[in-house]
Amino acid sequence: MSDPETLVRSDNPDHPANLIPALCAKFWTLGWVTGTGGGCSIRDNDHVYIAPSGVQKELMKPDDIYVLSLSQTLASANRIYLRSPAAYKPSQCTPLFLAAFTKRRAGCCIHTHSHWAVLVTLILEQCGSTVFEINNIEQIKGFGRGFEKSGNLGYHDTLRIPVIENTAHEEDLTEFLEEAMDQYPDTYAVLVRRHGVYVWGDNVHKAKTQCESLDYLFQVAVEMKQLNIPWISNIPKVKTRREREAEAAAQDTA
Amino acid sequence: MSDPETLVRSDNPDHPANLIPALCAKFWTLGWVTGTGGGCSIRDNDHVYIAPSGVQKELMKPDDIYVLSLSQTLASANRIYLRSPAAYKPSQCTPLFLAAFTKRRAGCCIHTHSHWAVLVTLILEQCGSTVFEINNIEQIKGFGRGFEKSGNLGYHDTLRIPVIENTAHEEDLTEFLEEAMDQYPDTYAVLVRRHGVYVWGDNVHKAKTQCESLDYLFQVAVEMKQLNIPWISNIPKVKTRREREAEAAAQDTA
Amino acid sequence: MSDPETLVRSDNPDHPANLIPALCAKFWTLGWVTGTGGGCSIRDNDHVYIAPSGVQKELMKPDDIYVLSLSQTLASANRIYLRSPAAYKPSQCTPLFLAAFTKRRAGCCIHTHSHWAVLVTLILEQCGSTVFEINNIEQIKGFGRGFEKSGNLGYHDTLRIPVIENTAHEEDLTEFLEEAMDQYPDTYAVLVRRHGVYVWGDNVHKAKTQCESLDYLFQVAVEMKQLNIPWISNIPKVKTRREREAEAAAQDTA
Amino acid sequence: MSDPETLVRSDNPDHPANLIPALCAKFWTLGWVTGTGGGCSIRDNDHVYIAPSGVQKELMKPDDIYVLSLSQTLASANRIYLRSPAAYKPSQCTPLFLAAFTKRRAGCCIHTHSHWAVLVTLILEQCGSTVFEINNIEQIKGFGRGFEKSGNLGYHDTLRIPVIENTAHEEDLTEFLEEAMDQYPDTYAVLVRRHGVYVWGDNVHKAKTQCESLDYLFQVAVEMKQLNIPWISNIPKVKTRREREAEAAAQDTA
Repeated sequence: MSDPETLVRSDNPDHPANLIPALCAKFWTLGWVTGTGGGCSIRDNDHVYIAPSGVQKELMKPDDIYVLSLSQTLASANRIYLRSPAAYKPSQCTPLFLAAFTKRRAGCCIHTHSHWAVLVTLILEQCGSTVFEINNIEQIKGFGRGFEKSGNLGYHDTLRIPVIENTAHEEDLTEFLEEAMDQYPDTYAVLVRRHGVYVWGDNVHKAKTQCESLDYLFQVAVEMKQLNIPWISNIPKVKTRREREAEAAAQDTA
Repeated sequence: MSDPETLVRSDNPDHPANLIPALCAKFWTLGWVTGTGGGCSIRDNDHVYIAPSGVQKELMKPDDIYVLSLSQTLASANRIYLRSPAAYKPSQCTPLFLAAFTKRRAGCCIHTHSHWAVLVTLILEQCGSTVFEINNIEQIKGFGRGFEKSGNLGYHDTLRIPVIENTAHEEDLTEFLEEAMDQYPDTYAVLVRRHGVYVWGDNVHKAKTQCESLDYLFQVAVEMKQLNIPWISNIPKVKTRREREAEAAAQDTA
Repeated sequence: MSDPETLVRSDNPDHPANLIPALCAKFWTLGWVTGTGGGCSIRDNDHVYIAPSGVQKELMKPDDIYVLSLSQTLASANRIYLRSPAAYKPSQCTPLFLAAFTKRRAGCCIHTHSHWAVLVTLILEQCGSTVFEINNIEQIKGFGRGFEKSGNLGYHDTLRIPVIENTAHEEDLTEFLEEAMDQYPDTYAVLVRRHGVYVWGDNVHKAKTQCESLDYLFQVAVEMKQLNIPWISNIPKVKTRREREAEAAAQDTA
Repeated sequence: MSDPETLVRSDNPDHPANLIPALCAKFWTLGWVTGTGGGCSIRDNDHVYIAPSGVQKELMKPDDIYVLSLSQTLASANRIYLRSPAAYKPSQCTPLFLAAFTKRRAGCCIHTHSHWAVLVTLILEQCGSTVFEINNIEQIKGFGRGFEKSGNLGYHDTLRIPVIENTAHEEDLTEFLEEAMDQYPDTYAVLVRRHGVYVWGDNVHKAKTQCESLDYLFQVAVEMKQLNIPWISNIPKVKTRREREAEAAAQDTA
């Protein structure tokens, strides 16, 4: 068996063991992983790299990273770690990250405690809603159309992010997250009431940019609420000159 | 034909291929280019440098930059690229940047998704307005008086930024942006409803500082709205001692 | 007697004399120690490291740090400093830090002027309250259950932070801080009306992450207030599939 | 006559020609000098160091700094520059900085366009007020008691910052700034309606920390306004145990 330490040693800044600390430091600055909250996991084929529980996210090092074998874990009743840092405990987010990797073949999953996400779930709670819906905002184009579909959402499409209720233990969220994935097969994110959000993507680039776009939309949504502007609107499609001319020509013919 | 790679290789930090990544990293920190949104283009005589589509703006490198010949593009039915990075697609903002370069001879054009810009267009939408107007705020002086005019706006002048409706495809915005430029010949910016803003200037310095000033004004405007303070006011001009004395002398004479 | 200068010279970034400046620079960026306000103290066994009064917190150096002997101070009527920087005066926060070290055996105590903390005390003042209470927010799990208790608060637990009134002189706060500690034996923080907050922990990691979690909760609380969402809620516990099945089985049996 | 270039060349990071760029970069990050707005000047005995007009504040270099002789300027009808950078124009803020240096013997003066300052002047305008007043907030202690007075304001003291109306030309503000200084002889700052604030201090440390404290107070004041909490309050003085015991003893004696 090879030395497990080699799993987290690389000069390549894009190696998952280097990337997770760099991303988490960035997320800390964005207020997404305050006070050891939140987390990030990257899957590289069968290897799943996970930050440990309870670390200061802006201080994390490659040495702190767990590496899990996805196939061995799926074939077993337990999680099979190829490398475990001595000083830590595995993250409670682990089964949620694994849900994104197995049910969606995601390459990266990010969990934030962003206060914008929490506020959106609180606003929705007041009207008994279990789904965040917004349309006609350009940033919606930052999301893929859905699992195994090509292309991104359009400006006039409605982005829908399901909200699940928070559980006392983070691991217990897993079944509800999986249910939400089944109910919203195209979603790349699930909000957790009074807690935060899980966002994934086919790779690190997509997970990160979808997470940024979503946080931006949550912020805009909260600010829209404060200005009494509804999240769902019925904006007419703008017709380009070509479209207007084509319509006029069609009418002339008719 | 010379090696196109030399177009993006320079030790000069002010070379467009170095400047665009540096600016975009700064804009990412300001929340202007979240989730690959927004962009930036610099024109150096006939060479137009453009960031590609879909990159994480804070991670961009000189290698990622497209270089387009403005004259060859204008003489042709297509965009003529002198250099294209292998891994990317050209930005959908390209025709909008070119509008600023050709119709205004701009040296730089910045496109942001700033949430302040989006909120301003949403507030204006509620009263059916297609122009942002503000006066009597010092930062208005940060704008030039207009195309081919010298000097800047004054404190008591009204800054007017037209708002165009967003289209499903970013390229389709071009005709409406050009229409707004025709209708507001002195503007250095066009807001796009529920999307963001395009800001340009004679050079990088002017485009960037006008973009910063505008974002500041958008923020102040949203906060004024929350405090029920109108954007347009009728503030009397303050008279200096010299002016008061001159008036008194004129009255004595009369 | 050994050279007192050795007390603040170390190549180890985790040495208190290096850590206090690094933490204070971070806190300055977070807006916690604006304009020389706030502070931070670390206890390493008998040695108490304290930032001086009136320094710009983001510019502090190991050279600026006071070192006090806790045992000699307790055995004496005065504070006994093992090292005093020539140019400064001791911090007015010193007796408050010492209260956390002696009454709670804390390893680190942080004092911030965070505007979120101040706003929370102002909101509470309007309804005559002397305790901040919030429940059913995930970040509450960032706090220990209390002094000499193991484990952390749960999601459904109510976090209670007492508020003491501000005094004209910071040192005079000490008796009220100690009273609040007696009245709330499990609290890791005390709010000071119109002033800020004191947060401590068994070590630097715990004090810092509890301070971050609390600032996050103060922010969310102010934003909830602006959205008319109460801080205390009665959220039903979510039942997992296993719990629902166990209940159903029990009913069948009955 | 010595080489004027030596006036701005020093290896000492605390030399004014190095300090002004470092401070301005920090101020840019705080949003105080957006879009070339605002500025900073340091006086070192007879030498007054000033940033030029219209530079991007986060990019400034020692080379960009003007040096003016205060005594020669006072003895002359014109401003006498010992060093002028070739590429720039002197700042329009110059006579306002000089007012702080001559009327208050200040060592540093900072001018910001902080949006919090602008919002405070807008809120005050709505009730026709020309002075910002706040009391019973700890950060008020960050201000000196006044010109040639020792010690700082206390927690229960009222901080008063006069507001002058903005003029079309920044230089024309000077007479109104000087009037406000005469009317409020102890103030270390003057707000300019719909424009920003001028803050000074005996030295760089005091000017900067007073400017930070004031910006913090402006932010808290705007947020208090949004929460309907008044800026002036009548908080009873907290009595310490010693004071209560002394009172009880006095009553027993009586």
